[in-house]
Amino acid sequence: MDEQTHQPASDRVTLRRRNQRAEYDPAVVRAILDAGVVAHVGVQTDEGPIVLPMAYGRTDDTIYLHGSAANSMLRAARRTEICVTVTLVDGLVFARSAFHNSMNYRSVVIRGEARPVDDLEEHGDALRIITDHVVANWDDSRTPTTAEIRQTMVVALPLTESSAKVRSGDPVDELHDLDGPHWAGTVTVRRAFGPPVAAANLVAGIGVPAEIARVFGEPGSP
Amino acid sequence: MDEQTHQPASDRVTLRRRNQRAEYDPAVVRAILDAGVVAHVGVQTDEGPIVLPMAYGRTDDTIYLHGSAANSMLRAARRTEICVTVTLVDGLVFARSAFHNSMNYRSVVIRGEARPVDDLEEHGDALRIITDHVVANWDDSRTPTTAEIRQTMVVALPLTESSAKVRSGDPVDELHDLDGPHWAGTVTVRRAFGPPVAAANLVAGIGVPAEIARVFGEPGSP
Repeated sequence: MDEQTHQPASDRVTLRRRNQRAEYDPAVVRAILDAGVVAHVGVQTDEGPIVLPMAYGRTDDTIYLHGSAANSMLRAARRTEICVTVTLVDGLVFARSAFHNSMNYRSVVIRGEARPVDDLEEHGDALRIITDHVVANWDDSRTPTTAEIRQTMVVALPLTESSAKVRSGDPVDELHDLDGPHWAGTVTVRRAFGPPVAAANLVAGIGVPAEIARVFGEPGSP
Repeated sequence: MDEQTHQPASDRVTLRRRNQRAEYDPAVVRAILDAGVVAHVGVQTDEGPIVLPMAYGRTDDTIYLHGSAANSMLRAARRTEICVTVTLVDGLVFARSAFHNSMNYRSVVIRGEARPVDDLEEHGDALRIITDHVVANWDDSRTPTTAEIRQTMVVALPLTESSAKVRSGDPVDELHDLDGPHWAGTVTVRRAFGPPVAAANLVAGIGVPAEIARVFGEPGSP
């Protein structure tokens, strides 16, 4: 990786601590966003910060969030600074000393001003992008009506001010602990998806869409 | 459940939307916290909100967070309003209409002022509680020195102002879509832990601690 080409976009997304774990390569940021399922979105309010989990989707340069038009937090977020964080826990790291216990993880932090998406075409595109983020099923669903699209608020945040942090591998203990009596090692953590299960009220004869079967396997029993 | 006994502690943790999914029962809040691995912690800064993933642990009435004493975000958080959010994704919910796609999840939001933990006894207790949150291995590790404890900053947040939100089950489609041609169903999502794997530099003859083996199974190969 050419370090020279991947500098942080701003001071506020520059990692100060453990900066050997920092990644400013957009490809790393995108890969972590693609592997995540929910983002944690932070907004400032008069009563302190609020952090809520939200679905999301991305293009090469933008992350989209959506919520009901009645969602007061997302309404408050428009045209204000927000922070979008996506974290994947990859492992538990047990050191010889509890002080050096850690986790293996990949995380992305994106900061910037949330832009309301009002253009109907971008709005529809964004909903498709969010719907297709984990598995592409937009084309296999009933298309939203214009009224439904209008009930769904979308905000966009540029990926410009983003940084990633990645930790992997074994615990790092003090040298004087290495020949001590304590165990050290890791436990991998991953997200496991079950097979698709039809809704109880699904009418007979409708098969699982091919893309859902491809990603999550053959249908299971309820 | 006696609804009368579980009212929200404040207006700012009262769910306004989808409030049939709200839970103010402390037992529900605690169970979600116990099942989570990382919290997403939001803090206000002069440059907008920042949200970072952090390890945590809880007692019956308090959640503890820790970080390096050099962690500028955690330092800034002390004696200010913060928000701690823990989310477990339990499933993907595919509706007949993309508009009704959803996720099954359990989440907890805790708001309040972060209290710096300066008392040495509470500080040590909190580190043990955080260490033992996912699996109890404090007693099987080398005990931290006083210097190590002092390098680790701990903040406490009361669980008083907390709320949970839980969604489970099948998609909820429009009535007129129920006999349409589109599939509907769910895919379960769970966190899977691998077997414990010894660190590459572990000296021979040290077995996996019993509690780690009990929770994560017998040791695997690297």
